[in-house]
Amino acid sequence: MKFDKKDNLGRKATELLNEVSAFGELDEGGMSRLLYTPEWLGAQNFLKEYMDNKGFTTYFDNVGNLYGKIEGTNCSDKTVLTGSHVDSVKNGGILDGQFGIIAGIIAINYLYEKYGSPIRTLEVVSFAEEEGSRFPYTFWGSKNIFGIANRNDVIGIHDENMVPFSEAMKKCGFNFKSNDSLRRNDIKVFVELHVEQGNVLELEEKNIGVVTAVVGQRRFSIKVVGQANHAGTTPLKYRKDAMSVSSKIINRINDMAWDYGEPLVATVGRVELTPNIVNVVPGEVEFTLDVRHPQGDVIKEFTQDIKKMIEEEGIRAGVDTNIDMWMDEDPVYMDSRMVDIIEEKCKDNSVEYKVMHSGAGHDAQIVAQFVPTGMIFVPSKNGISHSPDEFTYEADLERGIKILIETLYELAYKETFK
Amino acid sequence: MKFDKKDNLGRKATELLNEVSAFGELDEGGMSRLLYTPEWLGAQNFLKEYMDNKGFTTYFDNVGNLYGKIEGTNCSDKTVLTGSHVDSVKNGGILDGQFGIIAGIIAINYLYEKYGSPIRTLEVVSFAEEEGSRFPYTFWGSKNIFGIANRNDVIGIHDENMVPFSEAMKKCGFNFKSNDSLRRNDIKVFVELHVEQGNVLELEEKNIGVVTAVVGQRRFSIKVVGQANHAGTTPLKYRKDAMSVSSKIINRINDMAWDYGEPLVATVGRVELTPNIVNVVPGEVEFTLDVRHPQGDVIKEFTQDIKKMIEEEGIRAGVDTNIDMWMDEDPVYMDSRMVDIIEEKCKDNSVEYKVMHSGAGHDAQIVAQFVPTGMIFVPSKNGISHSPDEFTYEADLERGIKILIETLYELAYKETFK
Repeated sequence: MKFDKKDNLGRKATELLNEVSAFGELDEGGMSRLLYTPEWLGAQNFLKEYMDNKGFTTYFDNVGNLYGKIEGTNCSDKTVLTGSHVDSVKNGGILDGQFGIIAGIIAINYLYEKYGSPIRTLEVVSFAEEEGSRFPYTFWGSKNIFGIANRNDVIGIHDENMVPFSEAMKKCGFNFKSNDSLRRNDIKVFVELHVEQGNVLELEEKNIGVVTAVVGQRRFSIKVVGQANHAGTTPLKYRKDAMSVSSKIINRINDMAWDYGEPLVATVGRVELTPNIVNVVPGEVEFTLDVRHPQGDVIKEFTQDIKKMIEEEGIRAGVDTNIDMWMDEDPVYMDSRMVDIIEEKCKDNSVEYKVMHSGAGHDAQIVAQFVPTGMIFVPSKNGISHSPDEFTYEADLERGIKILIETLYELAYKETFK
Repeated sequence: MKFDKKDNLGRKATELLNEVSAFGELDEGGMSRLLYTPEWLGAQNFLKEYMDNKGFTTYFDNVGNLYGKIEGTNCSDKTVLTGSHVDSVKNGGILDGQFGIIAGIIAINYLYEKYGSPIRTLEVVSFAEEEGSRFPYTFWGSKNIFGIANRNDVIGIHDENMVPFSEAMKKCGFNFKSNDSLRRNDIKVFVELHVEQGNVLELEEKNIGVVTAVVGQRRFSIKVVGQANHAGTTPLKYRKDAMSVSSKIINRINDMAWDYGEPLVATVGRVELTPNIVNVVPGEVEFTLDVRHPQGDVIKEFTQDIKKMIEEEGIRAGVDTNIDMWMDEDPVYMDSRMVDIIEEKCKDNSVEYKVMHSGAGHDAQIVAQFVPTGMIFVPSKNGISHSPDEFTYEADLERGIKILIETLYELAYKETFK
């Protein structure tokens, strides 16, 4: 496919991003757009109207996922879906999520204007929610269309102002009926374009990431219980210093993670001491451990080794240790044919790309459990995301949209993808 | 000296402790008695009246230090002083401080009843303040009587309810005049009886500690500045994980402290991460280091080694480190003749004792800079202090009072101590 400079795809994306970001924009830059707020509804309605004007057939489902489609000429064939989530984290950037929606709209509009109706229906989705920033529930949008959102899980939950989930939903004009009423059985393939939210592409001077998998993930709370003592009057030999033991454990976690090697990551992100006073030997330390890898068996083996090590260090130091695993998610793999297609499109367009996994969660990991899925990354400047400082160069936004256009063309204007 | 079982010295101490602890007692046990509060004034007035009734000559100085004395027959000779501080920490125990005052009163009263007037004047002091729990100033009582309290330092300070120091003082009827007006030049020798506030005596099955020194102490804030990153999308090799570096540093601090050996203690008591979130690589860690030893040159050498190590680890990891020393106190030595006298009294009474240093600060460390000083410890159950759970067996309280009586007799009824 030959792109014309006058297409100005990157500039169009920037303009549309700025327009839709008015819904939730912050004085200090970036935006906050939480599920079922006026800003959220404003953004969805804006996108709907925008697509209406471009000739898309648009509609909401019962939970507020917004769709816009261009019907395919072969109506017996299934839909080629693209898109991402419209919600943001609190004080987030303007790319995480909505860039994938905007890129989808621009791409489908481009294809429709240039090539007319596709063979397979092309559809963009603006998922209602992915981040879990307002209510303690994530992937509400994508889970619903595959019937795996649990209605009972959201009945009892509320936001930090004690507004119930169902009330917020109704205020926006949506009403959860049943899982089955939303379920989509017509989707052939899904492709999501998203910012990387990491620094790999930038540091390795690549412009596109071709995603093979979303990592599996285990999260733990680890408690080390020693004894609080006076820092002056308690000789080292009579201490049960929970921080001393914890620093040894954290140190060994890091060493073991390096020994396991890439692409394993292990992070101790949160550490809380009790009583946390300069002149008291810490009696208790609780810290978190987040372990990710694209292979589930590696996560299992590594975390078993860690568990054993922690228990050994606890016994050696004469302190109690407790390990609580509160998250255990399997990796999710992208469809290998999709990986091949996206990679091929990068080559065709002479784009520097990297075949890589995603260390963060995305809607694609829900969809991929039901239909073949592919994912495209564009670089994040300084690896920053979930911050008003989130930024991607316009040239990279444009490259992402071009690869998405090429991919959608392959999927919807040809019948090669079976 | 032969003690009679009927003297019931331990029981008397318990009863008097319970009576005076009414001033500041907490429902959950223990007490809070902060400087210049109604509880504080109540306790001082109670002690004054108690001493008046026992025939002591009592008086307050301008800052609220309370004295009670029995005049010596040789008025040209100087005063033998004992006592401790009447204030407590917030939610403290009933022994820290006031036990030394009560023991002094019981001891002097015992000697006066049994042997009549001493040669040297015997005096007990109930220091106004030592803990620094209400206002950010410590050793207010003892510093004043040696002219080293800095009036300007307390003019501008206030408690957490914004009550100025001077206002609280005036409300209790006291009025700071000048350093010189309070200065005592008549003190020959000082001895303080205090709970150990550590677990050494208990673990080594000793009943009395003969204190040789109060440790010197340095305190630091150490900052490690890396870079906050997404815990999933940032490979280990692209991280500047401030907690990973800090755990290595803390680990090495502990190893180095063990290598230096006893009696050095090093404590990392407080650790604060930023942003302290499970799925974010810590961008910044700030932690405290408290180092103590009875020899100043050892502290200096050790902390220089630590500083070098921290800088090395920072450079190795490519993160910034900053080391801020905000406390640097020299050790203070007890008078060796006093150590000998107290040790001899322990032997005479067949008491299991340990010659040891104090890892905590005490009024004795102020007084010792001006007059020969000795210090006696009684054990703290489980090493607990600064807590309502602070406890010492009555038999140990009694042993402490007996050694104090013997020591005061040696100092005030003989003229051997020159």
